[in-house]
Amino acid sequence: MSDYTPPIHDLRFLIHNVIGLKTVSDIPAFAETTPDLVDAILEEAGKLAAGVLAPLNRVGDKEGSVLQDDGSVRTPTGWKDAYGKFCDGGWQGISASEADGGMGLPLLVGAAVGELWHSANMAFALCPMLTAGAIELLSAHGSEQQRKLYLSRMISGEWTGTMNLTEPQAGSDLSKVRSLAIPADDGSYRLTGQKIFITYGDHEMTDNIVHLVLARTPNAPEGVKGISLFIVPKFLVNADGTTGKRNDVKCVSLEHKLGIHGSPTAVLSFGDQGGATGYLIGAEGQGLACMFTMMNNARLSVGQQGVAISERAYQQAASYARDRKQGKSPTTGQDDTIIHHGDIQRMLIRMRSTTEAARALSLYAAVQLDIAHHHEDPDARASAQVRADLLIPMVKGWSTDLGVENASLGIQVHGGMGFIEETGAAQHLRDARIAPIYEGTNGIQALDLIGRKLLRDKGSAMQRLIAEMRETFVQTADADEMEKPAKMLGNAIDQLEKTTIDILARCEASPTLAQAVASPYLRQASICVAGWLMYRSQKKLFDGDVEPGFTDAKHLSCDFFFGQVLPESDCMARQIANTENDLLHETAPLF
Amino acid sequence: MSDYTPPIHDLRFLIHNVIGLKTVSDIPAFAETTPDLVDAILEEAGKLAAGVLAPLNRVGDKEGSVLQDDGSVRTPTGWKDAYGKFCDGGWQGISASEADGGMGLPLLVGAAVGELWHSANMAFALCPMLTAGAIELLSAHGSEQQRKLYLSRMISGEWTGTMNLTEPQAGSDLSKVRSLAIPADDGSYRLTGQKIFITYGDHEMTDNIVHLVLARTPNAPEGVKGISLFIVPKFLVNADGTTGKRNDVKCVSLEHKLGIHGSPTAVLSFGDQGGATGYLIGAEGQGLACMFTMMNNARLSVGQQGVAISERAYQQAASYARDRKQGKSPTTGQDDTIIHHGDIQRMLIRMRSTTEAARALSLYAAVQLDIAHHHEDPDARASAQVRADLLIPMVKGWSTDLGVENASLGIQVHGGMGFIEETGAAQHLRDARIAPIYEGTNGIQALDLIGRKLLRDKGSAMQRLIAEMRETFVQTADADEMEKPAKMLGNAIDQLEKTTIDILARCEASPTLAQAVASPYLRQASICVAGWLMYRSQKKLFDGDVEPGFTDAKHLSCDFFFGQVLPESDCMARQIANTENDLLHETAPLF
Repeated sequence: MSDYTPPIHDLRFLIHNVIGLKTVSDIPAFAETTPDLVDAILEEAGKLAAGVLAPLNRVGDKEGSVLQDDGSVRTPTGWKDAYGKFCDGGWQGISASEADGGMGLPLLVGAAVGELWHSANMAFALCPMLTAGAIELLSAHGSEQQRKLYLSRMISGEWTGTMNLTEPQAGSDLSKVRSLAIPADDGSYRLTGQKIFITYGDHEMTDNIVHLVLARTPNAPEGVKGISLFIVPKFLVNADGTTGKRNDVKCVSLEHKLGIHGSPTAVLSFGDQGGATGYLIGAEGQGLACMFTMMNNARLSVGQQGVAISERAYQQAASYARDRKQGKSPTTGQDDTIIHHGDIQRMLIRMRSTTEAARALSLYAAVQLDIAHHHEDPDARASAQVRADLLIPMVKGWSTDLGVENASLGIQVHGGMGFIEETGAAQHLRDARIAPIYEGTNGIQALDLIGRKLLRDKGSAMQRLIAEMRETFVQTADADEMEKPAKMLGNAIDQLEKTTIDILARCEASPTLAQAVASPYLRQASICVAGWLMYRSQKKLFDGDVEPGFTDAKHLSCDFFFGQVLPESDCMARQIANTENDLLHETAPLF
Repeated sequence: MSDYTPPIHDLRFLIHNVIGLKTVSDIPAFAETTPDLVDAILEEAGKLAAGVLAPLNRVGDKEGSVLQDDGSVRTPTGWKDAYGKFCDGGWQGISASEADGGMGLPLLVGAAVGELWHSANMAFALCPMLTAGAIELLSAHGSEQQRKLYLSRMISGEWTGTMNLTEPQAGSDLSKVRSLAIPADDGSYRLTGQKIFITYGDHEMTDNIVHLVLARTPNAPEGVKGISLFIVPKFLVNADGTTGKRNDVKCVSLEHKLGIHGSPTAVLSFGDQGGATGYLIGAEGQGLACMFTMMNNARLSVGQQGVAISERAYQQAASYARDRKQGKSPTTGQDDTIIHHGDIQRMLIRMRSTTEAARALSLYAAVQLDIAHHHEDPDARASAQVRADLLIPMVKGWSTDLGVENASLGIQVHGGMGFIEETGAAQHLRDARIAPIYEGTNGIQALDLIGRKLLRDKGSAMQRLIAEMRETFVQTADADEMEKPAKMLGNAIDQLEKTTIDILARCEASPTLAQAVASPYLRQASICVAGWLMYRSQKKLFDGDVEPGFTDAKHLSCDFFFGQVLPESDCMARQIANTENDLLHETAPLF
């Protein structure tokens, strides 16, 4: 396992020069987010990520979290201490409001910092990631009393949070949730049922855990409208905030997973002793609606995991390639390190170029969420929300697919050593493999993009994005050096528009066709939008306001993306054009 | 872990109807390989694969092979018995000559049967695969005495064989081998050195193991011409064939690998007690030349592992998708199994279509090797050898990349359950990941294709293949129903020719450019040639000489390949066209 060097340079370049910190710091809520503050935050976070969390990544993989005989869960050696340091830095509250004790920083910064945690130690970083989702949910929907009791302790990291959605029969389809919540005399509820795949469902790093649980109330209607959301603390909380007796929820097993071994994935059983005490959040029947509040941020975070694992895998592979001598240089005939071999370079630059492109895409999406949540102008908020809604499935879907592809390439760069667990390259693939699955499978992301985000508004959000991407050429038309990339990107944008119009024409009447082309469409759109951000990056390079060492490397990433990755979007366009109505749907008996 | 159903139907279709068994049974050496015999062989092999080997796949993954305190290696529970049954069937000698005790069947049949073993249990099947390589090597280069002592016992499976090539500093670049072989008075040698990544380097399934070892003789020239090949038996063999004392070679550790846990990957130490007794094969300095004899067959076998894992992952994913209820049908609105969802179908049919295409490609390559080795006409042998040499890097490189991609898709089809080890889907990805690495990394395969197979003969072998592919259209021009696939395939062939000419023009003077475009070229060529075989398959379907149930499923595979996979070859062509001279090579300092 190689060291981890936080990619501060690229993050700063993207935040300051490409995405534009000013876009968010102009919003009064973020007036204090100065460039210096952002740099200082990235620097500090980088130290914790590289110095504390990264060295525990392999330990976590080897030891895993363990369900002990006494029913408690033990995280890997060193994790509890590291968690303490994480909380001491106030990192859990980076994007939480200052009123509740958070740092109140824009998501743009929170997302950049989040990448560092996930690169350093994805299995560890899942704990704060889930807690952040719980914080967001309680901030938006918790009663005054609930906020008072739970929120500040979660923002400080004193307590962690979990999301209890999945049941064996209810995964992607939450309408099938069966856990039951029966009202008690004191206004609380008694919950029974079993939840699976609960990330950090139990652990010993904090004194209490705040479970947020989807369950059905008696006589509630069938389907999603009968589902409500409850707070079920591991230890009941007294009115003064002290913890009382153990609630009737327990971890009955931990999953044996392909990766993220350090993260305890629990089966939680509620109500074995008669019923776990739960407190309704919002109104009955509003459970899923509440959950949707945090969905965009959660999906952004998972997308960032894809970026993070790609970055870590790239660094490890490049480091190995710089050291490993094998074969001879094709130019000098002398013994050479493998980083001089063209095929190794092709793999490395693909990893880096796509990582940087996906990073740009995720930060761009983060800014849209910042505007959507905090801008003073309601029109600006509304249009940023539409843009964010369009981008989030791309960020989640494409970045996590890239995470797997790049981790696999990272293994390949190592040759035989990549297959040996001690090297650490294999862990990245095992860890990365979950990200296309959870927080809505990438198939679900693609259906979300093509259904809710494209067909529902008849393509208007996508057309606005396409128009804005084209506008970039008008602004850069005078720059000769951008002629070639402009042509390549221009083709990709034209192709995206053509595919979009084709899909609108063909899919409205055929939901089965929409399902069949959704995934290639997500990839096509993602590559095109990310290509646009790489184009804007390269333009900034030619403008000359960045350091030379960084400039050369970034030019290479951009050139590679235009010449080697953009053609994939055209391939997707052809796949979509070649997909016939019902080609797939009628074929179930043939599998 | 789901059951395994050998794909006998597709194998028979390809052997009898598409590749053409007659092509090999017309060769006198294979005159007895009748269609009925082939069917009987496939049936019997299928029983052993599905009934004995497949149920041990998960056991092997969980237990792994273990180096015990006494220095011996223990394979997983049940493996020794299974190995006994494998030998009882005579399967080890399926392609070995009858004179030496083998079945003398064509490689076409041996390869088909090999797929079954690897699908059932890849970690197990590696043992016979390595032994087959050793058999081939000894058959070609062993002295009369060596053949007499070792060969029949290896063909019967009584002893297994290993390949000892890699050392820590000598992986892809074998010129760096340092193990030393010093001549002794009795004509044998004493070997010292350490070999790593030795598949089945030690185990308890047989009484003896025949190590084939690359080592350097004293005063031998530097580089590959100083390397010789030796037999180093685990137990010395007396003149009467009985085993004598333990040789000075021992397993000092087993690697902790991402996958194929059941296969013991050994570090072997030679000569700790003064020198392991070894016997020279062929002449001094001919070690690598001897090794090359078995390279095509070994690479074909590894390619087949890619096909095999794809097939197994497909079966498992399809089985899960048929059972798992989640979400509603887009047409009826009713609860539905996920196999009815368009995105799931897209993943499943991609897995199946590419598996079948890669299977066709590997069997086609096997036939070329059969002709090259056994045809009576030397011209036929020579031209088949050229064709085989061209195809083998595609079979090895593309099929094993597909193995990883398809195993990953298989996990995705399972959703959250795919990430849980008990499901078994994750094992396929872990197992599959080695195949693009060993037996020459896929980067090496691509360099082999573009260097030795394309640039060296100025493209003539590729042009002959392209001409033959085009000829197919002439033969099928009267078939209206083939018009659309013919157009798609025709475009891909034209594009392959264009790319080939472009590479010949640009790469001869620039080895660095050749390195940079080698991998996309391998993929482009593989997809095109496999597409041609899918085209020939579909033509046979329209000819109507196959069963209807199979026909519908196969049409779907073919249609998907033309519409969805062929466009990838065009994407590769554009990547190659967009790669500039030295774009990559000069960039090493930028990583």
